[in-house]
Amino acid sequence: MSVSEYQFLDKIFDDLFPICRSISGPGLEASIAYISQFMPLTVTKVTSGTKVFDWTVPPEWHFKRARLWGPDGNLICDSDNCNLHIVNYSEPVDTEITLEQLQPHLHSIPHLVDAIPYVTSYYHRTWGFCLSHQQREQLSAGTYRVKIESHFDENGGVPFAQTLLSGESEREILLSSYLCHPSLANNELSGPLVLIGLYHRMLRWPRRRFSYRFLLNPETIGSLCFLSQHHQHLQQHLEAGLILTCLGGPSANLRYKASKRGDSLFDRYIGQLADKDDWRMEPFTPLYGSDERQYCSPGFNLPMGQVAKTVYGVFPQYHNSLDDKAFMDMDSVIDSINQLEQLLLSAEISGKALNLKPYGEPQLGKRGLYPNINTPTNRRTSSDQLLDGRQELNAILTILSASDGNTYMLDIAKRLNLPLASLRQVIEKLEQHQLIRFNTGETL
Amino acid sequence: MSVSEYQFLDKIFDDLFPICRSISGPGLEASIAYISQFMPLTVTKVTSGTKVFDWTVPPEWHFKRARLWGPDGNLICDSDNCNLHIVNYSEPVDTEITLEQLQPHLHSIPHLVDAIPYVTSYYHRTWGFCLSHQQREQLSAGTYRVKIESHFDENGGVPFAQTLLSGESEREILLSSYLCHPSLANNELSGPLVLIGLYHRMLRWPRRRFSYRFLLNPETIGSLCFLSQHHQHLQQHLEAGLILTCLGGPSANLRYKASKRGDSLFDRYIGQLADKDDWRMEPFTPLYGSDERQYCSPGFNLPMGQVAKTVYGVFPQYHNSLDDKAFMDMDSVIDSINQLEQLLLSAEISGKALNLKPYGEPQLGKRGLYPNINTPTNRRTSSDQLLDGRQELNAILTILSASDGNTYMLDIAKRLNLPLASLRQVIEKLEQHQLIRFNTGETL
Amino acid sequence: MSVSEYQFLDKIFDDLFPICRSISGPGLEASIAYISQFMPLTVTKVTSGTKVFDWTVPPEWHFKRARLWGPDGNLICDSDNCNLHIVNYSEPVDTEITLEQLQPHLHSIPHLVDAIPYVTSYYHRTWGFCLSHQQREQLSAGTYRVKIESHFDENGGVPFAQTLLSGESEREILLSSYLCHPSLANNELSGPLVLIGLYHRMLRWPRRRFSYRFLLNPETIGSLCFLSQHHQHLQQHLEAGLILTCLGGPSANLRYKASKRGDSLFDRYIGQLADKDDWRMEPFTPLYGSDERQYCSPGFNLPMGQVAKTVYGVFPQYHNSLDDKAFMDMDSVIDSINQLEQLLLSAEISGKALNLKPYGEPQLGKRGLYPNINTPTNRRTSSDQLLDGRQELNAILTILSASDGNTYMLDIAKRLNLPLASLRQVIEKLEQHQLIRFNTGETL
Repeated sequence: MSVSEYQFLDKIFDDLFPICRSISGPGLEASIAYISQFMPLTVTKVTSGTKVFDWTVPPEWHFKRARLWGPDGNLICDSDNCNLHIVNYSEPVDTEITLEQLQPHLHSIPHLVDAIPYVTSYYHRTWGFCLSHQQREQLSAGTYRVKIESHFDENGGVPFAQTLLSGESEREILLSSYLCHPSLANNELSGPLVLIGLYHRMLRWPRRRFSYRFLLNPETIGSLCFLSQHHQHLQQHLEAGLILTCLGGPSANLRYKASKRGDSLFDRYIGQLADKDDWRMEPFTPLYGSDERQYCSPGFNLPMGQVAKTVYGVFPQYHNSLDDKAFMDMDSVIDSINQLEQLLLSAEISGKALNLKPYGEPQLGKRGLYPNINTPTNRRTSSDQLLDGRQELNAILTILSASDGNTYMLDIAKRLNLPLASLRQVIEKLEQHQLIRFNTGETL
Repeated sequence: MSVSEYQFLDKIFDDLFPICRSISGPGLEASIAYISQFMPLTVTKVTSGTKVFDWTVPPEWHFKRARLWGPDGNLICDSDNCNLHIVNYSEPVDTEITLEQLQPHLHSIPHLVDAIPYVTSYYHRTWGFCLSHQQREQLSAGTYRVKIESHFDENGGVPFAQTLLSGESEREILLSSYLCHPSLANNELSGPLVLIGLYHRMLRWPRRRFSYRFLLNPETIGSLCFLSQHHQHLQQHLEAGLILTCLGGPSANLRYKASKRGDSLFDRYIGQLADKDDWRMEPFTPLYGSDERQYCSPGFNLPMGQVAKTVYGVFPQYHNSLDDKAFMDMDSVIDSINQLEQLLLSAEISGKALNLKPYGEPQLGKRGLYPNINTPTNRRTSSDQLLDGRQELNAILTILSASDGNTYMLDIAKRLNLPLASLRQVIEKLEQHQLIRFNTGETL
Repeated sequence: MSVSEYQFLDKIFDDLFPICRSISGPGLEASIAYISQFMPLTVTKVTSGTKVFDWTVPPEWHFKRARLWGPDGNLICDSDNCNLHIVNYSEPVDTEITLEQLQPHLHSIPHLVDAIPYVTSYYHRTWGFCLSHQQREQLSAGTYRVKIESHFDENGGVPFAQTLLSGESEREILLSSYLCHPSLANNELSGPLVLIGLYHRMLRWPRRRFSYRFLLNPETIGSLCFLSQHHQHLQQHLEAGLILTCLGGPSANLRYKASKRGDSLFDRYIGQLADKDDWRMEPFTPLYGSDERQYCSPGFNLPMGQVAKTVYGVFPQYHNSLDDKAFMDMDSVIDSINQLEQLLLSAEISGKALNLKPYGEPQLGKRGLYPNINTPTNRRTSSDQLLDGRQELNAILTILSASDGNTYMLDIAKRLNLPLASLRQVIEKLEQHQLIRFNTGETL
C-alpha cells in the first residue's frame, strides 16, 4: 500500500506542479478538475463582483504567456519556462520601455541570488516580472520589450471545492487546504496531497464517528467565499477543524497553531500531545498564517487550528522557486499523512460523549459488564487483554459518570491516568451496548 | 438524655438485627414498620416489573428458611441460626446433589476462616449457601440435601420510606440511609440508627431554617425508585444532602465523600472543616460507595455527598458475619449523631442568605444597629458578648453587602476571618430585623 | 490656563466655604445654585416623606442661628462665627439649663483640644453644640442659655444636581461628588472643585468617546434619591464611574477603591497603573467610604469605584474645624484634576471595542493599511512615528482580532506589550476607517 500510495501521490504532484494557478482562472480550475478524479469534489464558483463580507470577488485572471526581451532582443523571462516569472494577476501589456522604467516592475531577492520570487497583486492593477537577482544584476541599459498576454473576465469568479465523508454523527471535522500558487511545492501542493491521502485512508476506516468535510480553496478570498455560504452550517455542526499547509518539509514533528478560542477538540488533544513533546504547539496569532485567520476572525470565532511541518516564513525556500520537488520530500508528505491519520483516529474517541442512560447507573449486570453475583472474590476477574477486569470496570464507571456531553474523553483518560488509546475497546463496548454515543453536540 | 438515647437506640438495634432483610420482601417491610413507631414514615412501594430508568424492579423475595444437610444427615447450614447462610434472593430448591455439584453454590472467605460472607444475587436467578471457610474445608464427599423455602412474588415490589421535618424554607436537606442487608451491624443498622437519632434531636431544635427530608430505602434499586418519583422535586428544592453509611465503627473523625458537582453546601463547609483536620474528605468517585452514585449520575447531578466513619472496604468485617454488635459500638453511633447534629446546626447558617433590603444600605440607625448621632467617639461602643460593637457592625455591613443569594455565609465568615459560629447572634439579629433571609433559592 | 484655573477654583472655594450646608435646606440649595453658574446643572428635589428604598427622605432643615450663653451671660458658641458649632439638624431650642443638663448636648475632641468637631443627627431629633475641648474644659457650673433658631419643613426635600456631557457613545462614565457638609474643605469642597475643573477640561476635548454624567448630591440619602430615579438607566448605560472625595490633601498619588464587582473599566485599568506604582489601589469594602457603598450594594452592584487622595479617617483634620483652606491645598486639587483628566483620556481608549467588519479579516489593502502587492521586501516599511510599519500592522491585526466587544483595549495593549497610549494613533486610524467602534455595549 505504502509504495503505491507514494507513486499515486507522486504522479499527482508531477501533473499539478507545472500548472500556473492563481486565486481564479483556468489554471486553478484545471487543477481542481484534475483532483476531482480522486475525490468527488463539488465545485462552487462565486461570481466576480460579489460582495463577500468586506471583500469583493475580483475578476477572473486569464493568463496565457508573459515574455520580456532585452535590448539585444534576447528573451530574458518567459513564463513558459517558469510560471513564477509573471507577477500573478498582471494586466496585459505590449510595450517597449527603458530599463529605468522597467525596474519598478522587476522583483528579485538580493540575499538569494538564484531564486525567482513569487509575487502577487490581486487587488491592485499592475504588472511585473520576477527573476533571479543574479540575472537582474546583469541587465544592461536600453530598450526592453514587454509582452504579457492576459485578460480579466468580469463575469468569471473564484471557485472552492469540497466533499463530505459522512460518519455516524452530523458533527463535522473540517480539513482544508489551499490551492492558488503556481509552481510551488511545499507551500502549495503538500497540503492538497495530504488531503487526498487522508481522504483515501479514511474511506477505508471501518467506521467514522465524525463526518469529515474536505475543502480546497484559493487562500483568503476562497475561504471567505466558502464561509459566506457555509458559516451558519459550521456554527451549528463544526466540532473542530484543521488548515493543512507546508506539510512536506524536513522537520520531524508536526506543529499545531491553536484556534483563537483555544478550547477546541484539537486545541485540547494536541495540547496533551505537546506536553509529551509528540507535537509542537503555539497559540493563535492573527499576525500571520493561512485561512485559520479567516475562520478565527471575531465574527466567526470557529474552532479551526492550523497544522504545518516546515512552516512558512522559517524556510528560505518560502515563496520562491527553491520551493520545488527537491525541497519537498514525498516521504515527508506521507509521514504527515501517517501522523494526521493517527491524530484523527484518536480524535474520534477524544471528544464529548453522551451517556444514553444518564439517570442513575445503568444496570451493567444484565449486559455482562458487571458481576451478577456479589461475592468477596469476584471483583478481580480479568476479561480483557488491555485492561484487567477491575481496571475495565473502573473505566466503564468513570466514562459513564463523566459522559454528560460536555466533558472530553481525553480528559477522562487523563483522570484515569491511562493513555486515550487504551480506552478504545472499552469505549467500543459501551457504544455497542448503546450506553454512550459520541459527538452528538447534545449535553445533559 | 444521653443514657436514654443510648438505651433507645440499643433496643432498636436488638429488635432489628435478627430480621432477614433484602431489597424487597417481608423482612424489609417489617423493619420499616418497626421504625415507623419512631418516625412518621410514609411508605411507597414500586411494583415488581416497573421500569425504573435503566432497571426493572425485581419480583419480591419471600424467604422462609434454608437448610443444607451433609452426607451423614447432619445439618450444616440453617438460616434460622444465621440468616447470612442463605445467598440473598436464592430461588426455591429441594434436591440432593454431590459435593462436587454443590461447590459452585458455596461461598466462603479463605483469608477469614471464621467469617460467614454475605452474598446476593438479586438479578440473576440462582441459589447458594454461605459458610465459614473452616466449616467448608471439613465437608466430605457424598450426597448433600438442599432445601430452600422461598418464592418470588411478581406482584410484589420495592418500598422506600420517608418523612419531612419542615422548616422556614422550602429548600431541603436530604438525609438518607439504606435498609436491605440481613444481620449486619455497621454496614446496615448504623445508618438508620443515626437517622432516627438525628430526627429526634432536630425535632427539638427551636427553629429549622431548612426543611429536612429523612429517607430509608434498599440500596441502589430503592434510591432509583425514590428518584423516579421525586427527582424533579429534588432538582427544584434540594439544597444538599448526605447519604449515611457505616457510622458505628471505631474511627474518630467522620469522612465525607463530596458530591460530583463539588460545589454543594456540604462540599464547601466540610471542605473548610477538613482544612482544619476536623473532618476527613475525599472527592466523588463513581467506582464505589452507596446511593450517592445514583444521585450524582450525570442525568441528575444532585448535590448529594456521603458520610461514613469506618468505611466499607477498609474494615475486614465488611459484608460478613464479623460485622456484628461487638464490632459496631453504640457509643460510636451516638458520637456520629453528635458530630452530624453540630454539622447540621452550622450548615443552617452556612448557606446562601438574601439581603431583603438590597438597594442601597438599609437604614441601620432606625433599627438600633448603628449610632443615630455621628460623633468622633461613638464608634467604639461595645454591646455584645461575642463580638464587640465595631466588630459586630463590620459583620453586619459585610453580611448585608455579600448576601446576594449566591454567596455562602461560610465564605463571608472566612472573609471576616471569624469562625462561622461566632456570627450566629449577628445573623439572628439580621433575621429578626427582616434584613436577610436564608435559603430561599432566590438570587439578586 | 493653569493660573486662571487656579483663580477660578479658588474663588469658588471662598464663596462656598462659609455656607452652612446640610443634606437639605437653603444652604445646600444655595451652594448648588452657585455651582450652576459654571455647569448647566439640572436639579431634582425628592420630597420629604418619600420612601427611598429602605429610607425615608427627612424633613428639610432650615437653620438660622444657634447661640449658647454662659452663666455670666457671655456668648460661648455662635454659629455665625463658625457653623460647625451647631449639631447639624438640631431642633429649635430656647431654654435655660444647668451645665450638668447641658453636657450630654456638647461635643468636643479630647485628643485635639483646639478642634471643633463636626457632628450630625439627621434621623434622630435632638440638638447640640460642638466646641473645642479646651473651651469646654473651662465651662463653669451655673445656668446656661440655649437658643437654636431652626425649623423643619415637612414639605421640603433632598436635592441632587446633574449634567450630561454627551459623547459618541451612549455608554456613560459617572463622575460624582457629594455636597452636604458645612465649612469643611478637603472632605467637602475638594470633590466638587475637581468635578467643576474636570467638566471644564472635558468641554474642550476634541472628542469624547463616552458620555460623561456629572453628579452632585448630599452623601448617602442624596445618592439613594438619585439611584431611586436613575438606577435602571445606569444598569443599561453605565460603563463605570468614580466617586470623588478628599482630593485636596498633601498625598502625591491618588488612591482608588475598587467597585464590589472588581471588573469595571477603572478596576482593570487602575489595577494596571497600581502594578506600576502610579496609583494606589484597595479592594471594595462596605465598612467605610462614601456613596460607592450605595452603588455597590448587592441589589445594584454597579461598577462604581471611589477616588481619593488624602483619605477620610487617616488625616486628623477629618470631620473637624482643622479641615480648612490651610489644610486643603488648591495646587493639590489641580494636581488631582490633572491626574484624573489623564486617567479619563486613557480610559477613553481602554474599554471594549467592537470590530465592525468581524467576518473574516477586513480588506486592509483597499484602505492603504496593508501592502497591495505581496513581495519579499515590502514587509518592513515604516509609515508612522510612534510605531514602525510592521509593529503598526501587528497592532491593527491584533486589535481587529480581539475587538469582540468583550475584550478591553488595555488588555490588548498588554498582549502587544505596548503602553496603551502608544496605540492611540492606530486606534484613531481604525476608527476613521470605520473598522472599530468603542463603547457601544454590544458584543459579537
